[in-house]
Amino acid sequence: MTTENVPRAPLAADSPTRPRAIGLGVIGFGTVGTGTVKVLVEHRHELNRRLGCKLELKAVCSRNIHRSDLSWLRGRVKAVEDWRQVVADPEVEVVVELVNDLRTAHSIALAAIAARKHLVTANKQLVAGYGRELVERSQRAGTALGIEACVAGGTPVLHAIREGLAGEHFTAVLGILNGTTNYILTEMEERGRPFADVLADAQRRGYAELDPAADIDGHDARYKIAILAMLCFGAAVPVEEIPAEGIRRIEQVDFAYAHRFNRTVRLLAAARRIKGGRLQAFVSPVMIPRSAPLAALRGSVNGVVLVGSQGGSTMISGRGAGAGPTAVAVVSDVVEIARDLLTGGTGATPLGYTAWRPARLAPLAEMVAPFYLRLVVRDRPGILARVCGILGRHRINIDSVLQEPAPSKARSPFAMSLEPARQGQVARAVGEIARLPFLAEPPLLMPFFDEL
Amino acid sequence: MTTENVPRAPLAADSPTRPRAIGLGVIGFGTVGTGTVKVLVEHRHELNRRLGCKLELKAVCSRNIHRSDLSWLRGRVKAVEDWRQVVADPEVEVVVELVNDLRTAHSIALAAIAARKHLVTANKQLVAGYGRELVERSQRAGTALGIEACVAGGTPVLHAIREGLAGEHFTAVLGILNGTTNYILTEMEERGRPFADVLADAQRRGYAELDPAADIDGHDARYKIAILAMLCFGAAVPVEEIPAEGIRRIEQVDFAYAHRFNRTVRLLAAARRIKGGRLQAFVSPVMIPRSAPLAALRGSVNGVVLVGSQGGSTMISGRGAGAGPTAVAVVSDVVEIARDLLTGGTGATPLGYTAWRPARLAPLAEMVAPFYLRLVVRDRPGILARVCGILGRHRINIDSVLQEPAPSKARSPFAMSLEPARQGQVARAVGEIARLPFLAEPPLLMPFFDEL
Repeated sequence: MTTENVPRAPLAADSPTRPRAIGLGVIGFGTVGTGTVKVLVEHRHELNRRLGCKLELKAVCSRNIHRSDLSWLRGRVKAVEDWRQVVADPEVEVVVELVNDLRTAHSIALAAIAARKHLVTANKQLVAGYGRELVERSQRAGTALGIEACVAGGTPVLHAIREGLAGEHFTAVLGILNGTTNYILTEMEERGRPFADVLADAQRRGYAELDPAADIDGHDARYKIAILAMLCFGAAVPVEEIPAEGIRRIEQVDFAYAHRFNRTVRLLAAARRIKGGRLQAFVSPVMIPRSAPLAALRGSVNGVVLVGSQGGSTMISGRGAGAGPTAVAVVSDVVEIARDLLTGGTGATPLGYTAWRPARLAPLAEMVAPFYLRLVVRDRPGILARVCGILGRHRINIDSVLQEPAPSKARSPFAMSLEPARQGQVARAVGEIARLPFLAEPPLLMPFFDEL
Repeated sequence: MTTENVPRAPLAADSPTRPRAIGLGVIGFGTVGTGTVKVLVEHRHELNRRLGCKLELKAVCSRNIHRSDLSWLRGRVKAVEDWRQVVADPEVEVVVELVNDLRTAHSIALAAIAARKHLVTANKQLVAGYGRELVERSQRAGTALGIEACVAGGTPVLHAIREGLAGEHFTAVLGILNGTTNYILTEMEERGRPFADVLADAQRRGYAELDPAADIDGHDARYKIAILAMLCFGAAVPVEEIPAEGIRRIEQVDFAYAHRFNRTVRLLAAARRIKGGRLQAFVSPVMIPRSAPLAALRGSVNGVVLVGSQGGSTMISGRGAGAGPTAVAVVSDVVEIARDLLTGGTGATPLGYTAWRPARLAPLAEMVAPFYLRLVVRDRPGILARVCGILGRHRINIDSVLQEPAPSKARSPFAMSLEPARQGQVARAVGEIARLPFLAEPPLLMPFFDEL
């Protein structure tokens, strides 16, 4: 197809390059790669109408590319097995990197930037781990870097931080960044199913990985909050320094207690500015109000709240994973880069900041919050007195004690809400409680979280 | 202040213009104008760090500028009464237009574009009424046009459509676009207060205008949905052709019935593609599920759902009005324009599409939906039979009939849910019911809406 029947605005004197076509190369032809090419093919008329030029797929690459059916691709597309051929291809202006392997992705990224190609990647580990390096190299090379697909799939949250809210002073960013765990938690809550059942079911349906650790232990969300913090605060946050707690220990009874507090349990990832120019960041299950907009996100949906000193809270939510949403994010980055190229820009749009700082992370122990403490005990007299005694010695005030009917004398849960205290102080007290002889399982501690 | 102590990336060979300063002129110095300048002043260090250059306020303009205290402005800022001086000022590269009057705003916009200045405006009437003209003139002049502040205040929804979701094929856009009416509806719902009370209270507190018609009759939301549809579908939608129904007739009892359907009442603005390349658009109170994320938006919050064929639904919500959020949107547009200028781009980023179509709007009568019908009658035998008879003759099936306890025999409300039918067909039947002698007030009809 051509753009000839698309009415075109007269050319501005200083954008002599329009009209032209932009050449793309896609490396990695799995679910997301195929989905991306599908969007480029299916919506080519609309994309051309948006841009006033053509996006032309010049090359696709994967190690098994010759086993793929490529008959549906339009135009003359080179199918190659070695990504170096895509990066070196003079027809390719934008390299779309969608491989799974972190080391390969890193090599592709560096090679593409060195060859002065614009780069779009969906690899969150790459951006969380090497974001600052990629940004600085891109700026130096005058090339663009598109990373929208790395966080919360199809939701345009990174664009929002970088552009739509570029005039904001962010004080915090937080959200539900992992669809698998949100699906598990909302299933547990709404259908009263135990954690292990829901997980096994999610694995059977392909919603959860066979090795679910990255999702349910909070590591996936940790990469994403590191990227969000990087963009919101212009700071390179070391991923491994962010404390991450997962949802393995959440039980049905925690939802029962949560509801009595008019709350629910969600796996939250958060980063915020605190005094002294430092940041506080964590991934943890938290008790949020049931009326909070984030609590209304059910199933595998992602949602991010951006808190600013001027405009208050802005929430962006949508499908966090899957070929369609991820492909939309990738293609949106491509469209934006193409627009910059068409209007004569170099495309070297920085990721929010031109000058980067290392992040100074405060220890989680310093965080002050009210806490939820759930104990499962072998029921016998005097338990509450012992627990309260320990909390009292650590100067932690108890706000309320709740007890749901116990399934048995041997396994009797009860819960407490604690008044605001430092996390470190509470954790020390809970460590002492954990050593009490009548505990049937380790205590569960999580913060109440209201800044939503 | 200078940018000298900000580490700067080495310059790319093809962006010889960096570093430099970008000169701004702000026309209109009311709440939003003052708020915008405040953000520019208070966050100048952060904005400079984001851009790697300075944003320099060169001129402020209002008819009473000499009565304003300008001592807090930094640098040498010209204070002028005639906007033509700002547009003509060679130091001003970006004109920020924040006047209230539509005709003046239009004159400023045309003059600024003609003088090849980049333009940022917060005037929704201007953009809804003259959007296509402004886009085409800007494209021809090679100047940028920033309109983020026109819809949903500080939420970056227009950027999301244009950039973050530029790879999406939108099928619908809908949302809560007026904060005053959402405040009134949620107050009515949560506190059981009647419409007139809440409105009077909102007026006293300054949340609602003394002449509230623009808000509560849906006209404000209509401008905004016209702009959203323009960006989502690349189509110029004539504002006055969008049917708009407000919330004046919503009563307490409608929330009582809504809850029995597990729903709530919200003023929704929507536009969607329907078959034949046409669009359907309306502003109307609707019954939405209480579990819908839009239903969780309480008070004067705005929320927009963007529905795409690839990525599903994405919701963006936040503060829809006020000096802070609006100023953030304005400054974000300025930052984006500055970035384009710094990277050597002409800034002529189109508003989503380079080629525009006139919109073909389908009549609301064609919309097929299940409906809520609420009647208030003087109670006497045989009423239900008469109403059902009329509906039956119009081939409209009744799904359920609900009756809340009546305050009196003279004013007895009841409600029906009707199975999906064409709006025109239902409206004709309701028109006939309205003429029945026992009606105490006109019937209230609104659709059930589930595509959220």
